Amino acid sequence: MTMTMNTTATGEALRRALDGPFHEIKQRWRNEVDGADVVRDPALSMEEARDWTLERVKDLAARHLVTAGFPAAQGGSGTAAESCAHFEMAALGDLSVTIKSGVQHGLFGGAIVNLGTTYHHETFLPDAITVKLPGAFAMTELGHGSDVQSLETTITYLPETDELEVNSPTSTATKAYLGNAGRDGRMAAVFGQLYVDGEHHGVHVVLVAIRDEDGNDLPGVTTGDQGHKGGLLGVDNGTLSFDHVRVPRLMLLDRYGGIDADGEYHSPISSKNARFFTMLGTLVRGRICVGGGAASATRKALTIAVNYADRRRQFRQPGLGEEILLLDYRTHQRRLLPNVARAYAYGFAQTELALQLQRVTDAAGADPQASRELETRAAGMKALQTRWANDTIQECREACGGAGYMSDNGLTLLRQDADVFATFEGDNTVLLQLVAKALLLDYKASWGDMDMRGTAQKTARLIGSAVMERTTARSVIERLIASADRKPEADRLSARGWHVQMFEFREQHTIEGLARRMRTAAKAEDSFEAINACQPHMLEAAKAHIDRIVLEAFIGGIEQCDDDYIKALLVKVCDLYALATIEANRAWFLEHEVFDPKRSKAITAAVDELCADLRGKSRELVEGLGVPEGWLTHARAAIPPLIG
Amino acid sequence: MTMTMNTTATGEALRRALDGPFHEIKQRWRNEVDGADVVRDPALSMEEARDWTLERVKDLAARHLVTAGFPAAQGGSGTAAESCAHFEMAALGDLSVTIKSGVQHGLFGGAIVNLGTTYHHETFLPDAITVKLPGAFAMTELGHGSDVQSLETTITYLPETDELEVNSPTSTATKAYLGNAGRDGRMAAVFGQLYVDGEHHGVHVVLVAIRDEDGNDLPGVTTGDQGHKGGLLGVDNGTLSFDHVRVPRLMLLDRYGGIDADGEYHSPISSKNARFFTMLGTLVRGRICVGGGAASATRKALTIAVNYADRRRQFRQPGLGEEILLLDYRTHQRRLLPNVARAYAYGFAQTELALQLQRVTDAAGADPQASRELETRAAGMKALQTRWANDTIQECREACGGAGYMSDNGLTLLRQDADVFATFEGDNTVLLQLVAKALLLDYKASWGDMDMRGTAQKTARLIGSAVMERTTARSVIERLIASADRKPEADRLSARGWHVQMFEFREQHTIEGLARRMRTAAKAEDSFEAINACQPHMLEAAKAHIDRIVLEAFIGGIEQCDDDYIKALLVKVCDLYALATIEANRAWFLEHEVFDPKRSKAITAAVDELCADLRGKSRELVEGLGVPEGWLTHARAAIPPLIG
Repeated sequence: MTMTMNTTATGEALRRALDGPFHEIKQRWRNEVDGADVVRDPALSMEEARDWTLERVKDLAARHLVTAGFPAAQGGSGTAAESCAHFEMAALGDLSVTIKSGVQHGLFGGAIVNLGTTYHHETFLPDAITVKLPGAFAMTELGHGSDVQSLETTITYLPETDELEVNSPTSTATKAYLGNAGRDGRMAAVFGQLYVDGEHHGVHVVLVAIRDEDGNDLPGVTTGDQGHKGGLLGVDNGTLSFDHVRVPRLMLLDRYGGIDADGEYHSPISSKNARFFTMLGTLVRGRICVGGGAASATRKALTIAVNYADRRRQFRQPGLGEEILLLDYRTHQRRLLPNVARAYAYGFAQTELALQLQRVTDAAGADPQASRELETRAAGMKALQTRWANDTIQECREACGGAGYMSDNGLTLLRQDADVFATFEGDNTVLLQLVAKALLLDYKASWGDMDMRGTAQKTARLIGSAVMERTTARSVIERLIASADRKPEADRLSARGWHVQMFEFREQHTIEGLARRMRTAAKAEDSFEAINACQPHMLEAAKAHIDRIVLEAFIGGIEQCDDDYIKALLVKVCDLYALATIEANRAWFLEHEVFDPKRSKAITAAVDELCADLRGKSRELVEGLGVPEGWLTHARAAIPPLIG
Repeated sequence: MTMTMNTTATGEALRRALDGPFHEIKQRWRNEVDGADVVRDPALSMEEARDWTLERVKDLAARHLVTAGFPAAQGGSGTAAESCAHFEMAALGDLSVTIKSGVQHGLFGGAIVNLGTTYHHETFLPDAITVKLPGAFAMTELGHGSDVQSLETTITYLPETDELEVNSPTSTATKAYLGNAGRDGRMAAVFGQLYVDGEHHGVHVVLVAIRDEDGNDLPGVTTGDQGHKGGLLGVDNGTLSFDHVRVPRLMLLDRYGGIDADGEYHSPISSKNARFFTMLGTLVRGRICVGGGAASATRKALTIAVNYADRRRQFRQPGLGEEILLLDYRTHQRRLLPNVARAYAYGFAQTELALQLQRVTDAAGADPQASRELETRAAGMKALQTRWANDTIQECREACGGAGYMSDNGLTLLRQDADVFATFEGDNTVLLQLVAKALLLDYKASWGDMDMRGTAQKTARLIGSAVMERTTARSVIERLIASADRKPEADRLSARGWHVQMFEFREQHTIEGLARRMRTAAKAEDSFEAINACQPHMLEAAKAHIDRIVLEAFIGGIEQCDDDYIKALLVKVCDLYALATIEANRAWFLEHEVFDPKRSKAITAAVDELCADLRGKSRELVEGLGVPEGWLTHARAAIPPLIG
């Protein structure tokens, strides 16, 4: 309780609004977890960081703070959605701890939960949860990361001994970049191509013990430590390769495909392709968490940078005595405040994504359309949030000048640790292409292969309702649009309905344009080059889609808020998010003659005004981002002059 | 010689063209300096990194590789311009070594050279050059970094003992972030307000011994080690504060203001303000070097990332056997190749800046207009190159996926070390405002305070010639513009003269617009807020100015090239730089109706085509960036599968 004693009432209320349904869980972290439990000394060496991180993860597990998403019978304590909320809070503390737990509980444990059956749950989950059994998630290989279907590792059934033989046939089949593989792991969930009786059944997962109690490699297993990295020094990434290693048949995680006692392969899903995507689909939580974790790191960076800018003075007005606060400079407001607004936008959207995960989890495969939609959004939200994180944490570092570069002040550690979020759980460029492909499939499902050229204009509205299923608050948004249409031209800029129209138009138009280009490309002589040329348009369409979903989530979040004062403040923050996003894409809008140069300049002016307006509430706004004060920097580092 | 044996003939020729007048110096580094001399093991601890770095700097000094810019009589070996070329080469090796030497030779040594007189040169330079006397450059204080005129440290003349007393009157007067202050420094060049006989003479610099031979603080001096930072672990940044420390009067660096034996202050420059800016102006080389060093780091990152993308395959075309090289993907080309083009552009512009430094140095203050122009360009080039460095090295890291995050592959070290280049030697936002202010002064000098509203259009061309003094190749550029004007509309996009026109128009228009706004703001009731609102326009104008200078330098560089094949290749690279820059600013051009939406889209298509075209020469193009092959990664790290 002492930790939040300095928070203003407005800050507390904003925090409640942004936490939404997870407020209780998040407050539990804020009240029970001390900075010393989760804030790393940025000067630790790699070995020290690994030791500290492992210990912290065990501690958080013992306190049931990172154990949601597991069956209660095996020691779990909460839903899948709640596990995402816990992940976000851990990431406000330290990203090495978060990712170490993410590897252990989310990936290794998650593979056992989602791809295994009762035997695996009962046998391995209790020790996986307490971290008595540290495990690696051995999917990526040196040769194949994004392209999981092309993994080279083989899992071959040997009927004579009723065993599975795991093998790395080439050097590029070496598993790589795996957390827990470098030092601590004792077991791995190994992805490989399953062969039974000479027949190939596609990628499956098998549990393989990799080290003995003393940490020595088991026979046939070669582990490697990948050592020092650009960040996340507390996570021991490493390599694994297998030389005809045998494990009992039972070790195959067989929920979607297994081998019976007679040595026969059986699966509830007959298509190899469908089975592969179903299996990968169950692992979607990792991608959701990584996006949310990157956003948490960014919230912390913004809190540090805004606090600094609100204390640090430099240069004085000619003739006046007092030096000027950094946050009173227009350029400084521009660097930070639109990002604070975006932090709120992504926060509301992330909560919605977690709730969507819960609905899909509860449906247990009964709603494949919902699963697919979840995967699309998870991929897009991960890509956008991690891109924003890298850009924004860097902006925060620079906005704190030399002080920002001193490790004690916390920003450089965030920057280094968050960096790889753009890569793991799916390279961002590849993920955005997945999003675009899913959008095209939806588009095709609605419109088939008919030539859209002539009908695009007339049917735009219809397409909207088909492709762009609204996320929340449907009736609210319809009302906002109708109300914007009735406003005089001069007031449009501040009308939420107009913002929605802009976001929707961009989404519709980029998807339609992409569909047209792809259709033409498919008929081209060199179809690779023609489709290749569509790539930038795929990224555009994917971003436009996610931007629209985020805006709608923000609108939905505001709708849930029952405090009029806070609601009015959030409306301004949403204005800033919406207009800054339109401004960032104004070249596109101008190219498509959606608005004219005059309007475009007016949008920039409106963003400036909103920054100046919200500057007076900057303290409350960053408090609302929910980072406990004692977690901002390592305790040793609290030397006020260095950051003040 | 063995190190370049794999370089193609085209790569060698591009290298020669880009090195320009510094080819011999740069080849000397490539031929004589081994990777082991300059490539740091990225996993070194802070203490190990500091030891290694100090030793490397001493070695390079002993080999006369970092000793240009000093008088030959004291051990110098080369011109000021050459010292910039050496700095660029050092930065292709390791940035800690570069900055440690930059602090020692460039800042500490540079202060003695430029602000001291014969006594200081003869007494201190020989040991400064060999690093027998490690020194700090004690300008920045905790309270004041960008605002040097407000420093709090005092230097008071005591006539009774003929000494100077150096004092830190407040905690915010503590000198901070100083390289060499944390551990190795024995002396510091301390900036403070000089008082003689109660009269204030503004900021001056005095040499103060800070530690004894054994590294203990001298009486009255308190040193502090700022410890772990976001990068540059080999540089020992620290703090200094002074409690009434006395030094002999002779220790004042008195080229621009000193105290004679009678205790009288005298200076060749009567205005306190003019003296301050003259003194700071002589330190411009540091800013030039930092911009060039950041560009070097980026060249290295681009070389690593392009090489990786040209070896790494992922995903295969449906139905075809071979997997696709990353660099064959359009999105991947887009991430890297326009940055390769920009590396060439900045390279040519950096060379020109170094030559300009030499002309100003040779003029020895006789051409104040040239000095001011140099300072403006140095500030702008520093800001643009360091911004580009941070963005591009990060892009390269991500473009190498998980491999890029492993420290052994070199990218994360570059990223961490280059980060603070955006801050030191001047915060980028502040520097761009300096540039804009200088442009406004030029503007005012040409046009006075007359209201430009009515005459702006008519006189645009004239303003061009007044404000926008061309850098090089004036007649060539005039010819290119004339030739573009004669081309049919459809061919304009590929005409260099049209590119120049676009760059010039943007520069002119942003400066004129800024002048108009500033004039209005000055008359406003709340003039701080009104001028504050002009800040974003200041940044725009400054960027537009430097962009134009860079383009002209590229054109001048091509003009110097006497190999027709290389020249034709560089023309395409320049096309890519020019069009990608126009594309990046297309929102501005559309808002100002300089071109229409159709042309805007055509520019994007042209950038795509140039990327696809130059992709076939990507290897040669990165060879041309001039990074010796053995310097790309630390020798221990050469494990091909991790990066291949």
